[in-house]
Amino acid sequence: MPTPTTAPVPMSATLAADEILARRQRAGQRVLPMASGEIGLPVLPELADRLARAVHRTAYGPVTGSPGLRAAAAGYWTRRGLPTDPDRVVAGPGSKALLFALFLAIGGDVVVPVPGWVSYGAQTRLAGGEPLPVPVAPGRGGVPDPDLLREAVRRARALGRDPRAVVVTVPDNPTGTVAPAGTVRRLAEAARELDLTVVSDEIYHDLVHDPAAPPDSPARYAPERTVVTTGLTKNLAVGGWRTGVARLSDGEPGRALHAALAAVASQIWSSPPAPVQEAAAYALAEPPEVLARVGASRRLHGTVARAVAARLTAAGALLAPVTATCYLYPDLTPLRDRLAAHGTTGGTALAHRLLDEHGIGVLPAEAFGEPGDPLRLRLATSRLYGATAEEQQAALDAPDPLRLPWIRTAVDHVGSAFDGLAALP
Amino acid sequence: MPTPTTAPVPMSATLAADEILARRQRAGQRVLPMASGEIGLPVLPELADRLARAVHRTAYGPVTGSPGLRAAAAGYWTRRGLPTDPDRVVAGPGSKALLFALFLAIGGDVVVPVPGWVSYGAQTRLAGGEPLPVPVAPGRGGVPDPDLLREAVRRARALGRDPRAVVVTVPDNPTGTVAPAGTVRRLAEAARELDLTVVSDEIYHDLVHDPAAPPDSPARYAPERTVVTTGLTKNLAVGGWRTGVARLSDGEPGRALHAALAAVASQIWSSPPAPVQEAAAYALAEPPEVLARVGASRRLHGTVARAVAARLTAAGALLAPVTATCYLYPDLTPLRDRLAAHGTTGGTALAHRLLDEHGIGVLPAEAFGEPGDPLRLRLATSRLYGATAEEQQAALDAPDPLRLPWIRTAVDHVGSAFDGLAALP
Repeated sequence: MPTPTTAPVPMSATLAADEILARRQRAGQRVLPMASGEIGLPVLPELADRLARAVHRTAYGPVTGSPGLRAAAAGYWTRRGLPTDPDRVVAGPGSKALLFALFLAIGGDVVVPVPGWVSYGAQTRLAGGEPLPVPVAPGRGGVPDPDLLREAVRRARALGRDPRAVVVTVPDNPTGTVAPAGTVRRLAEAARELDLTVVSDEIYHDLVHDPAAPPDSPARYAPERTVVTTGLTKNLAVGGWRTGVARLSDGEPGRALHAALAAVASQIWSSPPAPVQEAAAYALAEPPEVLARVGASRRLHGTVARAVAARLTAAGALLAPVTATCYLYPDLTPLRDRLAAHGTTGGTALAHRLLDEHGIGVLPAEAFGEPGDPLRLRLATSRLYGATAEEQQAALDAPDPLRLPWIRTAVDHVGSAFDGLAALP
Repeated sequence: MPTPTTAPVPMSATLAADEILARRQRAGQRVLPMASGEIGLPVLPELADRLARAVHRTAYGPVTGSPGLRAAAAGYWTRRGLPTDPDRVVAGPGSKALLFALFLAIGGDVVVPVPGWVSYGAQTRLAGGEPLPVPVAPGRGGVPDPDLLREAVRRARALGRDPRAVVVTVPDNPTGTVAPAGTVRRLAEAARELDLTVVSDEIYHDLVHDPAAPPDSPARYAPERTVVTTGLTKNLAVGGWRTGVARLSDGEPGRALHAALAAVASQIWSSPPAPVQEAAAYALAEPPEVLARVGASRRLHGTVARAVAARLTAAGALLAPVTATCYLYPDLTPLRDRLAAHGTTGGTALAHRLLDEHGIGVLPAEAFGEPGDPLRLRLATSRLYGATAEEQQAALDAPDPLRLPWIRTAVDHVGSAFDGLAALP
């Protein structure tokens, strides 16, 4: 028999949790899936129709995506204050795949925010580098603290390591917060000082709850070195379609990175799925019905996330104000003694407890790179909107989604579970 | 300005050539695209219809693909003499992406056939290993010579390198030949002796021109260590849809590799495009209309490839009998002196000459890893079937496609170009 293979990275924590929850559901158990950020909303009919009309697109087309998709993406960013040349756009089969290909193209080690999305570190390792974790200051989710970044990079270089990029997530997964402009600017300045490429994961850009307070981008402060990525997964709830776009910087460094990224893409995925490219071009052109849908989902995320946040806070959790996305990142330290008295001493045990006792799937802070298994969790509210497309559409349409019985029940279910933790003797 | 990035690998030679040819075409130049193996045939209407009906599939679903797709793939292989457990199938966004993820999951260096497909070596490098090129014996396309394999692996290990896998391509790209069963068996035995995983790229399995002579698979001889990959790209001409499947071996090593591959997939692509999975499940179940279409395209490939091969041979090229796929790999050494007298001393210069003087896009042997820029080329006949879906359908339906004027013209165009080379003073 051949030597068994050892996995070079662990399974994605979000996807692994989803599969466990799906198995429990198939076994007839009651499950509240709050572990992954998959958006439980139906596809916009006009968007589905675009895909249905593109099924005859069977050619690979250009490695970096069709001219139509790249032009639409350029328009999307230009409307957000980042003028974009379509020739500096690279489309791929998901922004996840693009991030990985960027790490391969850039090479070296990658600074990742802590807490940060589960795949940045694993992708860095698969690309042959080492993740360099740098903490995020409270309320400034997704942006490594600029001073700590300087220290960490200098120390790493002194030890012979080769950090070449820093990842930021604005707005942030897992904390649901948006780094303020000052932090983003200082991060961009530090990256310039340190000659790091900034990889800015902006997939949640349009899901800031207050549309009058759009998030800032490091591409405004360090345009010569910032790559921005996004996709349709979060805005339009079509994660399963697998499509994303990257915006590379102008000038020679951007050109060189574009060439490297296209080369990597040509060797590992050829081109993004052709029919989906047509649908993505339609979506990124943002016709009124798309803007209306993104607006409706933004309101729904905000309403439900804040309602769940209020219940967590009422139960004694510490929680930064949730201003974007569908993620809550409560700190249960105030309940530490009660939990410890019942054998629950860290976030991992707490996540198990919520699943076993309440059927609630969540992820512990450890999944987001936090050391020492702290008593923090990430809860995603994006699958509380209904079990059917009809319920989900009603949630999008409702003036007050919290009055819909299935949403009220779900919010109460979470709230009661945490009340129960707070009431432990 | 940041330090410019150096691409870690070159652009895929086939995709780069396609983009050059597309640019020439847009500039109004006459082009005969024979550089890439993209299949210029329309999508089967029933298959397109399946995709159109699946556009509401927006959830990620399982990392390794839907149960329906995995069961259909298991049936596909079981019908070909390789009984398959659906739980040992992994679907991905293209067999190209699966091959790369396998190299990441297996780790170490990878033995690649020479000549061999353009991406095996680049993918090995991106996965952190080094390709170990081993020559293929004439007429045994895609299978590294078993004795040379033993020598190369032992030498590499003595030098501290770590070869863990060997890739085979049966039937073969670029040579259009099918390794005989004896060679496949001896390769499998050598892999067992050397404790190598065999990665068997069988995307051309159903395109052997004589359906009574199906290709053999190393999975029959070394079932405990062979991974088989395939997809819809070649059989059903839907390369742009991006879908592929891998069949892992039974037993503990197969289980461990399955876990590693799923972990890698979860971190770099999440899941294959969900709507395409539905269409792929339909195709791999092989209803009569799918079998009829694959049969028709097999006959068309065979007829046109052999007609072009006859013209090349008539012009003096050496060519192993073409028995599968749409690839020809002629050796122009008999014309060496004539070509040299006109400044054309290698395959690369010859490819340039064919493009500049005749508008024919081909790839030199160097693109397939052959050292020393020999006077060999790969020509793909898969885009000679017509400029429109109507012409292509007529080619599929024609009792004798060579009588269709556009195909006759294309074959004559290639033939005349090579006659011209043979007639050089």
